[in-house]
Amino acid sequence: MSDARPVAVFDSGLGGLTVAAELRRQFPAENLVFLADRARVPYASLSQALITRFALECLDFMLEHDPKAVVIGCNTVSAVCLDEIRARSHVPVIGVIEPTASAAAAATKTKRIGVLATTSTVKRRAYDTRFAELIAGVQVFSNGCPLLVPLVEEGWTDGEIPRRIIEHYAEPVLREGVDTLVLGCTHYEYFRDTLQEVFGPAVTLINTPEVTARDLQPVVREHAEPRTGERADTVICSTDVNDALQRVVSDLFAKDIQAGRLQVRAVQIPSPTASERR
Amino acid sequence: MSDARPVAVFDSGLGGLTVAAELRRQFPAENLVFLADRARVPYASLSQALITRFALECLDFMLEHDPKAVVIGCNTVSAVCLDEIRARSHVPVIGVIEPTASAAAAATKTKRIGVLATTSTVKRRAYDTRFAELIAGVQVFSNGCPLLVPLVEEGWTDGEIPRRIIEHYAEPVLREGVDTLVLGCTHYEYFRDTLQEVFGPAVTLINTPEVTARDLQPVVREHAEPRTGERADTVICSTDVNDALQRVVSDLFAKDIQAGRLQVRAVQIPSPTASERR
Repeated sequence: MSDARPVAVFDSGLGGLTVAAELRRQFPAENLVFLADRARVPYASLSQALITRFALECLDFMLEHDPKAVVIGCNTVSAVCLDEIRARSHVPVIGVIEPTASAAAAATKTKRIGVLATTSTVKRRAYDTRFAELIAGVQVFSNGCPLLVPLVEEGWTDGEIPRRIIEHYAEPVLREGVDTLVLGCTHYEYFRDTLQEVFGPAVTLINTPEVTARDLQPVVREHAEPRTGERADTVICSTDVNDALQRVVSDLFAKDIQAGRLQVRAVQIPSPTASERR
Repeated sequence: MSDARPVAVFDSGLGGLTVAAELRRQFPAENLVFLADRARVPYASLSQALITRFALECLDFMLEHDPKAVVIGCNTVSAVCLDEIRARSHVPVIGVIEPTASAAAAATKTKRIGVLATTSTVKRRAYDTRFAELIAGVQVFSNGCPLLVPLVEEGWTDGEIPRRIIEHYAEPVLREGVDTLVLGCTHYEYFRDTLQEVFGPAVTLINTPEVTARDLQPVVREHAEPRTGERADTVICSTDVNDALQRVVSDLFAKDIQAGRLQVRAVQIPSPTASERR
């Protein structure tokens, strides 16, 4: 029997929408609920205790929608508290770091991998640890890029200044002659073309939305019946809805909007229902 | 009798610390409580309803400290919900826009005033409205500068890229030949020297911390006895404490730290006590 429960996707802001859009592409029949905690973005500058508290509050909100699986479309949260999220969730949880690291490990020939990520992800050495498990003798060169999330949240992704900022963050990694680059924050997907230009065509950029969505396929098959039939619904929830969100949603989900199968909702986290239950 | 109740100062982030530091300078004997809601910074990209809710939650936290006055060291909050804050507070509330606008009105000779501020403050036309009341025939040229708050919160205030970003935001205002410039966000105080260089020595930059602190003098005299005697205490509360906060506090409050009269506290907003009372 087809299982109409949605797949839930979460990010602190607009970055995770690139993952949600790829899920929509790979799973056209699955209902999707996306949650952006934009009222509290960016997470990366926060302490790990606070990131964990916010992420668990967001998990509670998603579990209220009775999902068949939860996708953490955020590297910072995946790096800081994926174990805590998995411990609290009764449905499968997929993060972005494991599939992205596996894809990078498969792609590198020189074993020299670059990671651009938020300061939190870099500090936690989340990719370094994973690569060390996967590839003997790997060398990882990381740099934190704190301004890229605010640029995306403001919708300033084109032009000379974003490019100069990207060149500034890329420089120490570029200098190391990596052959593979991880965009270790889903917000950076909006800078994919610029990053490919800056690093040159010889460097492989891993596509986090694509490999993460691919990792969901066995999970949906194993734990829940894939939904079949007509085009499914997409619900975009955000703790703050503004012009930048509306613009990105219009770009990424044009077909769903045309088909009348997309809703945008302003929500509150922690959700009033959840806090009453506690 | 000397009144030991503190003056409370509030901002979404590190900008208001420039106001707190100036209060410390002008009122060496007054106890100060500063609150930064860094867990939810930046406010400016949020909806007005959410900015108001967050600001009122922060007000409740400050009122728990039984202050003699509250200073809103944040242009965005002053622009969006100063009336709501005043309606809820039983002690005098001072915002930054009124004293800053008055100082700019006194300074301009050509009646051409520039305002660099957050997108929210610009959208609310907070300075435009105030200037129109104060100066017949005034012309106000504003630009929103959304990236400057994240730059400050990350501690990236020097070097070529911050300067290029500032030149980018300054350009449309500079072009209009203003003789007076309002730094319409207290975070921008950290860019004062760069802004003075970009605008040139002929343009007067209004000093918001100084004129705001000056506005507090009659309020303290009229509504509460100024505290007299020895050096007073400074308590810096933040909904998130990280390296950038610690660095700025060390710079601005070196003497108070040396004297053992400064504490930094991590706090939660809405405060658990306040929400239990509701």
